[in-house]
Amino acid sequence: MRHRIAPRTGTAFTLDKGQTLTVIDPSGEQVADLLAFKRADVHEVISSGRTLDYASRIYLTTGDKLYSNRSNVLLEIIADDVGRHDFLLTPCSKDTFRIIYGDTDPHRGCFGNLAIALAPYGVTEDMIPVAFNCFMNVPVDGTTGELRVDPPLSKAGDRVVFRAEADLVIGLTACSALQSNNGSFKPIDYQID
Amino acid sequence: MRHRIAPRTGTAFTLDKGQTLTVIDPSGEQVADLLAFKRADVHEVISSGRTLDYASRIYLTTGDKLYSNRSNVLLEIIADDVGRHDFLLTPCSKDTFRIIYGDTDPHRGCFGNLAIALAPYGVTEDMIPVAFNCFMNVPVDGTTGELRVDPPLSKAGDRVVFRAEADLVIGLTACSALQSNNGSFKPIDYQID
Repeated sequence: MRHRIAPRTGTAFTLDKGQTLTVIDPSGEQVADLLAFKRADVHEVISSGRTLDYASRIYLTTGDKLYSNRSNVLLEIIADDVGRHDFLLTPCSKDTFRIIYGDTDPHRGCFGNLAIALAPYGVTEDMIPVAFNCFMNVPVDGTTGELRVDPPLSKAGDRVVFRAEADLVIGLTACSALQSNNGSFKPIDYQID
Repeated sequence: MRHRIAPRTGTAFTLDKGQTLTVIDPSGEQVADLLAFKRADVHEVISSGRTLDYASRIYLTTGDKLYSNRSNVLLEIIADDVGRHDFLLTPCSKDTFRIIYGDTDPHRGCFGNLAIALAPYGVTEDMIPVAFNCFMNVPVDGTTGELRVDPPLSKAGDRVVFRAEADLVIGLTACSALQSNNGSFKPIDYQID
């Protein structure tokens, strides 16, 4: 069964150990912020710092594992049509839109959407770390360290598939930031198998 | 007054708004993991994801601000002899030494040292995020995304200076990982003015 996340919204759901989560970009050039928490103790959560250290790479793809802050594997990427995702930046928020875009009445962003969706699972705002940003294209200049947020490389129908290595709570969004999605807001689809 | 952090140890202390913290590499090629928490509520902490997004750069130096998970500035870098620090990787831990180095009786690392030093301030292990790793040299290949941990570029006596933009609790280490420090364990000095 395929689920749809409307533009600029988010959702949360459980994923059992061994199940797979397929994140699909139905229209192309759309980002989905993904969070994974250990269901038995939601203070255990995916960690960019641990994961990038163990992978020795900032661009993760098929075969790479997403580690928690306690160095356990929570998810493994088992298929990937795109090969370019971001694990450096935090979900966009009211403050992102205020500081980067200069909005005076800013949208709550992926951060706000994740906070609302995850609250019933006991996750509070301060427990939201750097997300694994599916399809987000953040090239880094290795010499100057400069980073940009470029249009995603995903085409309509492209997908990335994760296998759960523990019983998890997942947060997932259709990203709310214009810059991340080449200037338009689109849905994200997902499927659990 | 200059304080010394012994090799493979860490400490914690308060820093008042407007005070400066100078982190000094007394021997050269040594890393110091730095954490900063808002003293009034230690659930507010420096955030690599927010900071890199606002800076649009992974290598931070003089003039750059370290933002919290709530998008407030906690520290600003006001002087920097080196210009190469890391804000991608989490403090080394028992698991780092087990997974990356294959140690069977691993050292508690900067993570363990920070956890012990920060416990009296109400900071628990799960509240330790990606640290600002002073002098840590992590070049990234912009094409492949590959990262390496190279010897620091710091020479004996080099320093980086931070100004507190809020009343803070600081955690600081003399890093415990051989790879980060070109194969030897050395002290770190610091001074508060």
